[in-house]
Amino acid sequence: MPAIEDTAKPASSGPAIILVEPQLGENIGMVARAMANFGLSELRLVNPRDGWPSEKARAAASRADHVIDATKVFDDLASAVSDLNFVFATTARERDGFKPVRGPVEAGRALRARAEAGLRTGILFGRERFGLYNDEVGLADEIVTFPVDPGFSSLNIAQAVLLMSYEWMKSGLAEETQTNFSGPELAPATKEQLHSLFAYLEGALEARGYFRPEEKKPKMVDNLRAVLTRAGFAEPELKVLRGIISSLDRFSPAMPRGDGSPGDDPRRLPAAARSRVKDEES
Amino acid sequence: MPAIEDTAKPASSGPAIILVEPQLGENIGMVARAMANFGLSELRLVNPRDGWPSEKARAAASRADHVIDATKVFDDLASAVSDLNFVFATTARERDGFKPVRGPVEAGRALRARAEAGLRTGILFGRERFGLYNDEVGLADEIVTFPVDPGFSSLNIAQAVLLMSYEWMKSGLAEETQTNFSGPELAPATKEQLHSLFAYLEGALEARGYFRPEEKKPKMVDNLRAVLTRAGFAEPELKVLRGIISSLDRFSPAMPRGDGSPGDDPRRLPAAARSRVKDEES
Repeated sequence: MPAIEDTAKPASSGPAIILVEPQLGENIGMVARAMANFGLSELRLVNPRDGWPSEKARAAASRADHVIDATKVFDDLASAVSDLNFVFATTARERDGFKPVRGPVEAGRALRARAEAGLRTGILFGRERFGLYNDEVGLADEIVTFPVDPGFSSLNIAQAVLLMSYEWMKSGLAEETQTNFSGPELAPATKEQLHSLFAYLEGALEARGYFRPEEKKPKMVDNLRAVLTRAGFAEPELKVLRGIISSLDRFSPAMPRGDGSPGDDPRRLPAAARSRVKDEES
Repeated sequence: MPAIEDTAKPASSGPAIILVEPQLGENIGMVARAMANFGLSELRLVNPRDGWPSEKARAAASRADHVIDATKVFDDLASAVSDLNFVFATTARERDGFKPVRGPVEAGRALRARAEAGLRTGILFGRERFGLYNDEVGLADEIVTFPVDPGFSSLNIAQAVLLMSYEWMKSGLAEETQTNFSGPELAPATKEQLHSLFAYLEGALEARGYFRPEEKKPKMVDNLRAVLTRAGFAEPELKVLRGIISSLDRFSPAMPRGDGSPGDDPRRLPAAARSRVKDEES
C-alpha cells in the first residue's frame, strides 16, 4: 500500500485520546496526567460540559501542562476523528454489530503497528455516567474492553485512559520485562568463592565447639552448606555474609576479643544515622 | 517443599494492597475502587494520616464497600506484612541494594505463581508525596516499578494500585487477549456467497449502464470485485451489502419504481428513532 502523505507522522506518534462530552474538569486533568506518564500528549474533547479551558483540569493534571495546553475542543465526534486513520472505542458492555473486540494488550500492539506504518490513530472514551452511544461506537473501527471483574465493573475515564496509555507505552518496549532501572546483576558466585566462605564459617564455628557431638559433624556441615547454597548468593552477597561472620567472630560473650563492649566496633552507627532517603513517588 | 499450613489459603487469593501512611481519604477510596475492578479485596493501611474509618474514602470508592469495610489498620509496616510470605515494594526510583527489580507484567505473574502455591502475598505503596523510605523497601522481597516516561513520572497511588491490580487480573487470564465479551465470529464467507453478490450487483449496475464504454467493462468488473474481496466479508456482512444494493436498486432518480418518494420505503425510520442505547461505562 502506498504511504498516504497527508497522514504521515513521526513513526511512533501515539494515539489521540478523545473524550466524548466529559463532565468534570478534574477528570480531564487526571486523564492528562495519566497520558503524560506514558508518553501520550494529544488530548481532544468533544463538547466538554463545563467548557474549556478549565482551571480544575489544569490543577488535577499535576504538571502535565503540555497536554492541557495542547488540548483541542470539537463540536462533534466526527470532526474530532476526521484526520485519523484508525479509531478504537472503549466500552464495558457488549454491543451488537460487526466490530472486532480487543483486550488492551492487543489494542496497544495494534495502535503501535499502525503508528509505525505512519497512520494516525485515536481512542474514544465516553461520558463519566454512561459511556458512548451506539452511534458513537459506530464511528470507530474496533472496540477495546478491559478485563475487569464482571461483579464490579466501575472504571472511571481517567482509569480507562491510564490503562490504555500504559499498554501503548508497553507496546513500544523491546521486552515486556523492560524497566526504567534494574536491580544489580546477581549471578551466583563461583563455587570457589562459596567454598571459601564455607571454610571460613566452619573454622569459626569449630573454634566455638558448634560441631558437637563429633559424629554428627558431617551431617551438620552438609546442612549448613545446603542452606548457604540454595539461595545462589552472588559475590557481593557473599562479601556481606563474610563481614557478618567476621563481626560475630570478633566478639562472643564467653571470649571477648576486645573489652566485650559493642562500642569497640568502629562500624557501629548511632540510631539517628539510619538512612531514610526520600523517594519521589511510590 | 512441604506446604506451610498456617499460611495456606484458597488457590488464587490475590495480593494484599498495603498503603504506607496514606494522607488523603479520597486516595484510599480510589485505591479500593481500582482494586475491586480487578478482583482484589484486601486493603491494609499503615498509620493513615487522617484516621480510619473515613467517609471521604467510602465516597471515593464508588460502591467498593466490601473493600472499605474489610480494610485493616496497622501501627507499623512490619505488623502489616507479618502474615505474608512474599512482598513487593513499588518504587519509581532506583535503590541501592540487592533486590531484584521487576516490571508490572512480570510482577503480576510472580504474584499469581505464589498465590497458586498457597502463599500469601502483598504489595507496598508509599506516601502520596514521597513514596517509601529505604528501610520500608527493605522489608520487601523484590521491587516493582512502572515503565513510565522518564520525562514525566507522576503516578499517584491509586494509579499505581490500578496498574498492579490490572496486571494481577491479567496474570489469571487463560490468554492475554481474553476479553469479557467478544465480537461476532466473522470468518470470511464462502466464495459462492461472495460470487452471488457480485452477480447481483453487476446485474443492477449493468441495467443502469455503469459499465461504459463496453471495452472497459472487464477492468471495471475486476476492480469492483477486488474492492469487495479484500475486506474478507463474512456471510452476515454480505447480507447487509445485498440489502443496501437491493434498496438502491428499487429507487433511482431517473427510473423511480414507486412514486420516487423515500416515504415509500417501509424500512425508513424517523430520525427520532435512531438508537441511542446507553452504556454503563466507557
